[in-house]
Amino acid sequence: MSEGKRIGIVGATGAVGRELMELLEARDFPVAELRLLASARSVGKELTFRGESIAIKEARPEEFAGLDYLFLSAGGDRSLAMAPAAVEAGAVVIDNSSAFRMDDEVPLVVPEVNPEALLNHKGIIANPNCSTAITLMGVAPLHQRFGLKRMICSTYQAVSGAGATGITELEDGVRAWSEGKDANPSTFPHPIAFNLIPHVDKFLESGYTKEEVKMRNESRKILSLPSLPVSCTCVRVPVFRAHAISIFAEFEKPVDVAEARAAVAAFDGAELVDDPTNLEYPMPLGYSSKVACGVGRIRRDEALENGLAFWVVGDQLWKGAALNALQIAEHLVR
Amino acid sequence: MSEGKRIGIVGATGAVGRELMELLEARDFPVAELRLLASARSVGKELTFRGESIAIKEARPEEFAGLDYLFLSAGGDRSLAMAPAAVEAGAVVIDNSSAFRMDDEVPLVVPEVNPEALLNHKGIIANPNCSTAITLMGVAPLHQRFGLKRMICSTYQAVSGAGATGITELEDGVRAWSEGKDANPSTFPHPIAFNLIPHVDKFLESGYTKEEVKMRNESRKILSLPSLPVSCTCVRVPVFRAHAISIFAEFEKPVDVAEARAAVAAFDGAELVDDPTNLEYPMPLGYSSKVACGVGRIRRDEALENGLAFWVVGDQLWKGAALNALQIAEHLVR
Repeated sequence: MSEGKRIGIVGATGAVGRELMELLEARDFPVAELRLLASARSVGKELTFRGESIAIKEARPEEFAGLDYLFLSAGGDRSLAMAPAAVEAGAVVIDNSSAFRMDDEVPLVVPEVNPEALLNHKGIIANPNCSTAITLMGVAPLHQRFGLKRMICSTYQAVSGAGATGITELEDGVRAWSEGKDANPSTFPHPIAFNLIPHVDKFLESGYTKEEVKMRNESRKILSLPSLPVSCTCVRVPVFRAHAISIFAEFEKPVDVAEARAAVAAFDGAELVDDPTNLEYPMPLGYSSKVACGVGRIRRDEALENGLAFWVVGDQLWKGAALNALQIAEHLVR
Repeated sequence: MSEGKRIGIVGATGAVGRELMELLEARDFPVAELRLLASARSVGKELTFRGESIAIKEARPEEFAGLDYLFLSAGGDRSLAMAPAAVEAGAVVIDNSSAFRMDDEVPLVVPEVNPEALLNHKGIIANPNCSTAITLMGVAPLHQRFGLKRMICSTYQAVSGAGATGITELEDGVRAWSEGKDANPSTFPHPIAFNLIPHVDKFLESGYTKEEVKMRNESRKILSLPSLPVSCTCVRVPVFRAHAISIFAEFEKPVDVAEARAAVAAFDGAELVDDPTNLEYPMPLGYSSKVACGVGRIRRDEALENGLAFWVVGDQLWKGAALNALQIAEHLVR
């Protein structure tokens, strides 16, 4: 790769920030300097990168000077507040929040799906919603082959989507159950252990959640299909960190299952796991800390014309967040 | 109700059999005699009904003499072997297996949906697949109001669907996790704790599972819509005993969400739980040992013409099995 880059992470102590540090190291990203930034209450803590301790500083515009890339992963409000200053300071911002995703001036990118969108950025690049990025790793190869016409999704979303406290809340809930006590949820609106919560992100007046609307709007933007019909129901499930999505998709051209499988197998970042005879299909337990998203259960959809039904699984913290953000930076430094 | 009936249960020691005994008692079914039948290895055990101990006998045709109703809940092979003898002996068989469900001579009944089918039975009545029965508790009121045209479902199925060993396998899996050990699955093909298994019942050559085909075929028969397009992906989730289904349905007539809610609220056996503002929607934790199925998240579907998206939850062991079977008998004794 190229010469070392000066990298900043806002939200370094969060679940996504920590995965990003791990991936920067594991994937040998050319880091000349790493600045870890967070809210005032994390100042004084230290985190280790490549064997060296780095003190966390408060995320303030002064800290952005000289940065090549700034990863923002501290929520939409902080992204809105900080991104312009970082761009002003000369950094390219890769933003993990929803703040800029639907901004016409901001590319929204899954590098395997629409890398061409990176050519025209103006300093800010948006990282998609986790469910959307993972869903599209299965949908995109089929869209390229058959032409996507309509998409219907039900998600099975891991607790890591709510950050580190989502993970501890599931652990605590299971512990409470084993001790015969009541769960005491604070991150999720209801107990998540041994339960399903059909509610991710805020409700809108339409009865949809923001998460469900993101799936529609972000899929349309990333696939350059601005009027694609998309329906989605998002559900939180008691799984730690890989999301799964049950997808029914209608295509322009006649579909063929063998061709669909070949298209998935050939797609960078997707992994075909589709051998029912040997009970092989992707599952969350196999997709924690994994780069590829798994695609399986591919079969002819019986209710849609030229339809395929399939199932996609991917690491919410990696392809759904930190990995995709880093892959954007990797594309830019190439 | 009417005079006491002589009741037999084959599969009395299984998860469904035990729930059936509980429901016979709790719902004051007019039982004059209860015969508990099971495989040879359960002979000698006793179970309590209305405070009295009943010895389990081996399920053999001789034991069917004089029975008014025989509930069969010991798998398809035993149902095929025993149902004719029971009918011969004068009993009405209510069969919980899939053995007779698609037999043209056998009514397949959800009493709130198609009670008229009970009028023409010839001694055997089939109880539907658990996911199908629960799904239809949400679909039927909307079908009656708007005319169902197409249905696309993703299931979230509890471990109780695999019987009592499914429940212990989830418990054991969670215990193994808390002790840092590997799970050791035998009922399910893979570990179920903190995982999702997109595979319920056997795979067919089409790539669909039998469970997915049951959803299509049984829905068509119960709703009297023999060519209804149905797509379904069935997924096992780490939840104890309530199934959930994410449904996208297309209708003949224009839909209206307020009317849809009213139709669900007015439907016997369904319960409208649909108040996003107050974070109310049905969830598995609230639907164990509950008669009604919960229906919520009702909203306009954005990818289907005249479409509605919604979410149904119901007790797999009750509406999905024992309760529906007992409700069939309740209808017959009225």
